[in-house]
Amino acid sequence: MISPSSPRVFFLAPFAATDSPTEEEIAASVREDDAAAPTLSVLDLGASRGDGIFETLGVIEGRPQGIEEHLARLGRSAAMLDLPAPHIGQWRAAMERAVASLPSTGQGSLKIVLTRGVEGSGVPTAWIVARAAASDFTERRDGIRVVTLDRGFPLDVAERAPWLLAGAKTLSYAINMAAIREAKRRGAHDALFVSSDGFALEGPTSSLIVRFGDRIVTPSTDGGILPGTTQAALYAWLEAEGYRTEYEALPVAALEQADAAWFVSSVRLAAPVTAIDDRPLAIDVALTTGMNAMLLGR
Amino acid sequence: MISPSSPRVFFLAPFAATDSPTEEEIAASVREDDAAAPTLSVLDLGASRGDGIFETLGVIEGRPQGIEEHLARLGRSAAMLDLPAPHIGQWRAAMERAVASLPSTGQGSLKIVLTRGVEGSGVPTAWIVARAAASDFTERRDGIRVVTLDRGFPLDVAERAPWLLAGAKTLSYAINMAAIREAKRRGAHDALFVSSDGFALEGPTSSLIVRFGDRIVTPSTDGGILPGTTQAALYAWLEAEGYRTEYEALPVAALEQADAAWFVSSVRLAAPVTAIDDRPLAIDVALTTGMNAMLLGR
Repeated sequence: MISPSSPRVFFLAPFAATDSPTEEEIAASVREDDAAAPTLSVLDLGASRGDGIFETLGVIEGRPQGIEEHLARLGRSAAMLDLPAPHIGQWRAAMERAVASLPSTGQGSLKIVLTRGVEGSGVPTAWIVARAAASDFTERRDGIRVVTLDRGFPLDVAERAPWLLAGAKTLSYAINMAAIREAKRRGAHDALFVSSDGFALEGPTSSLIVRFGDRIVTPSTDGGILPGTTQAALYAWLEAEGYRTEYEALPVAALEQADAAWFVSSVRLAAPVTAIDDRPLAIDVALTTGMNAMLLGR
Repeated sequence: MISPSSPRVFFLAPFAATDSPTEEEIAASVREDDAAAPTLSVLDLGASRGDGIFETLGVIEGRPQGIEEHLARLGRSAAMLDLPAPHIGQWRAAMERAVASLPSTGQGSLKIVLTRGVEGSGVPTAWIVARAAASDFTERRDGIRVVTLDRGFPLDVAERAPWLLAGAKTLSYAINMAAIREAKRRGAHDALFVSSDGFALEGPTSSLIVRFGDRIVTPSTDGGILPGTTQAALYAWLEAEGYRTEYEALPVAALEQADAAWFVSSVRLAAPVTAIDDRPLAIDVALTTGMNAMLLGR
């Protein structure tokens, strides 16, 4: 039985980026599968090695957000993992089909996944999970407490050791999940990763943005962190609102001077940070409301 | 069609460690599934987040090696990931059934996997992949060239930041796979991870042991690396053969004084290292032969 909140799963028989399939071939390459049924092989390297990549797009009133930005980032992750470049037209069409399975009101998400495929096959596996949002996102209003957790890597890890895949959005998220559990164990809602040399990085599933007066700062993405699609959308809006927006190496100690901070991501959108470790932070209600209204298209 | 080299897949309906199932209940909790068919949900956190753990056991002439050691390590990994402790009796019985599906001669492997299960279910997913060895393991004779690759973490990472799961054997192996690809790009066979503070650690899928005269050294496992089951079996034998065996923080620079080195693991067994970066290493033929004969039970 498919209830409105049941996830819907669509598999793609992936084309190479250099293929030129017709619209009919693309349509035939996407099939919906039973989300409750097993549809993946245990021999898939995504499942056995976390060897794959993903993106999560927010869906608002039936419209997926930032399709091109997410596909561009998927392409960058693919290159970092030596996975075949995604066929953008096929993914676009598949997302269109997946989003059509969702309610046309309210919020939802698309998680798009590309793995190295079944061991030995040389054929990547690709799917999309579409779902309506289960949460009412009270954290956008009430905020979240975060604790800083060492990410173990120095700020220059991405250029120094690209095989560590810092800045790629891989399925190997066990550490991200462990960090969230550790944060909850400490009575917080989420974790803020910091580099081993003392710079603020990102959350396990979100970007950090910080307000210092009329200046908005996010950690430089050359520090091996993900370039945030939601953060980028917010930056465009914040600039139009008259804020100065900057990418910086942001020492953890500098957060003590912050006037406000947010964890931003595709589905939760902008969640104000109400404490970093033991230090409380006030919620900037006006800016929080403005950012979320913009992201929600209201 | 099941050929001798086709993998066989067995799923367990996992008992809690504190359950006391009867032999019949245990037998009923293990079912063989079609290895070629999809048997896993895309909503399984093992597949979507690399959020699970595994062990790989060598099978020699129908006998799985180091069952208790691997189950003990699976239990330690489970604790590090806040996964439910495995029911040892159930895993033992499932492995017995899985290994019975393999040829009783030659080599093979069992990969045992425990994931956090389908998102929201709270029920872990557990399976075993049994397969006959495809390789003839010429690297045991011819050796492997390795290149050192920075693991990004300092030696004290495990105590300093347990949420980074250093020393747990998780499904989040994208970095390990990327390191092997980088090693091959550099013309080598495998990678030797080194800590950011300059100590030799381990390979992406094996332990390092090094001979200095009559002294055998492996990197201390408190440095966030996996305690090797094959390494431990070799240490017992090497001690009986009159070698001094030691666990040490092993600076990369010290490898220049090595008389011989090996990558050791459950299936490949002891592969002599013939070069570390640009420095060639002689194969200790007698010791290599002796170690592999012992591991093969010959």
